Amino acid sequence: MLIKTSHRFDDATRVTAGDSRWQGRTSPDYWAFVGPFGGATAATILRALIEHPQRSGDPLALTVNYCAPIAEGAFDLDVRLVRANRSSQHWSVELSQGNGDVATLATAVFAERRPSWSHQPAQMPMATPFEQIRRHPDFDMTWTRQYDFRFVEGAPGLHGGAKSTPGSAFSKLWISDRTPRTIDSLSLMSMSDAFFGRVFHARGELVPFGTVSLTTYFHVSAEELAAEDITRVLAVADAKIFTRSYGDQHGELWSPAGRLLATTTQVAYFKA
Amino acid sequence: MLIKTSHRFDDATRVTAGDSRWQGRTSPDYWAFVGPFGGATAATILRALIEHPQRSGDPLALTVNYCAPIAEGAFDLDVRLVRANRSSQHWSVELSQGNGDVATLATAVFAERRPSWSHQPAQMPMATPFEQIRRHPDFDMTWTRQYDFRFVEGAPGLHGGAKSTPGSAFSKLWISDRTPRTIDSLSLMSMSDAFFGRVFHARGELVPFGTVSLTTYFHVSAEELAAEDITRVLAVADAKIFTRSYGDQHGELWSPAGRLLATTTQVAYFKA
Repeated sequence: MLIKTSHRFDDATRVTAGDSRWQGRTSPDYWAFVGPFGGATAATILRALIEHPQRSGDPLALTVNYCAPIAEGAFDLDVRLVRANRSSQHWSVELSQGNGDVATLATAVFAERRPSWSHQPAQMPMATPFEQIRRHPDFDMTWTRQYDFRFVEGAPGLHGGAKSTPGSAFSKLWISDRTPRTIDSLSLMSMSDAFFGRVFHARGELVPFGTVSLTTYFHVSAEELAAEDITRVLAVADAKIFTRSYGDQHGELWSPAGRLLATTTQVAYFKA
Repeated sequence: MLIKTSHRFDDATRVTAGDSRWQGRTSPDYWAFVGPFGGATAATILRALIEHPQRSGDPLALTVNYCAPIAEGAFDLDVRLVRANRSSQHWSVELSQGNGDVATLATAVFAERRPSWSHQPAQMPMATPFEQIRRHPDFDMTWTRQYDFRFVEGAPGLHGGAKSTPGSAFSKLWISDRTPRTIDSLSLMSMSDAFFGRVFHARGELVPFGTVSLTTYFHVSAEELAAEDITRVLAVADAKIFTRSYGDQHGELWSPAGRLLATTTQVAYFKA
């Protein structure tokens, strides 16, 4: 069922190894308003770390700070293992273009996910099955066409003009690659930025918007995630506050079987 | 009412300016299991940024990765302005001791909090007033004695032995400095790590525990926070999952008047 040739997502997040300096390139397939889709940038950074010969363990936490727009084309990734012990590694990654300033600054933690007591207080939200929901129509941005968004609740309603009273910022949706691809930690990283700006939902309109800082925690080992063998996640996102030109978002990515795979939070700029 | 001489918290988070290298020192007053209280370390890093001559704007996001224990004594802070534009600044801070490896790695975003459309979907949790609740008895760790914890719900019950079924990981409490101190962004940063390990609540016992990565977002400008003129916050914290030796936490810090001041999340190691 899955495409065996290279997936567009893997092309878009491909990296070339260097000693400490790795290379990547923006993809026209994952383009947003004024630069690459932040999820693809985050996944590219994570890929460089996962493919790094010194990497050990599974991704536990990744924080990506979007400092400035990335221009179309090649970029460098300055990858540095800051500190390591026998159970965890701390990394930093700086993305820059043409010997210029840093455009994206990231830190990551990798860890040996040793067996332990286990408990999941969070419950998977109820949701209409994926197959019973129609795919959301495409948006202009090319990155949105690489995904299949099926809203259970809180679809963006951006065509009625600005709301007179704020709408709900909550969304619940299935997210899958448009061309199915087995979910790995790269998918989770990218999908954790694949929610639409919560401010669009609250305002009922598109406004100038940009993620400033994104943090994702992984709650599954690579081996457990591979065993899930899934091509979609149930995702929920909400916001707590919009004020003084910035708003928050927090979200969860669930396996169809009810396992919490990742949690994510971000703070984003808006103009409204 | 407030003490006018130097507060213990200000002593504990004091920094000395350098060019890019700043100095700080651990405080016996804010000591945890095997090193300084992570909240004090985070606040010290934030103080170095706030006092930095190149800093402009208010703290928006701070992520602190605790790479290794910090030993008692002096430490260096390598403070670097990574990227700036007219509305935001991106910083990185590396804490090390005696020319050794990095012990703590942080990134921060500062931003001009320009007026905008404002909306707070989150509602302040109901809570018994501070004055009507007794302070929680002291724990062994010195840092806990610098705070006044008044639990509305979810006080740690660590003396009955391990629970046979997991307890709730949720807590709601008032947090104040034991010696009252006006809440500023340094307090919010420190208090965002002042929850007890969620795993203690779920297990009903203390287990080896350490925060690995902590992210806090500030939802108030320095000027607005000063105008609140408060010495305590209502805080809530919960967890979604404990698995493979790591668990998450997410929390909120509220002003008594019902304003969401900060949101925070962390991932922590545990042994159980």
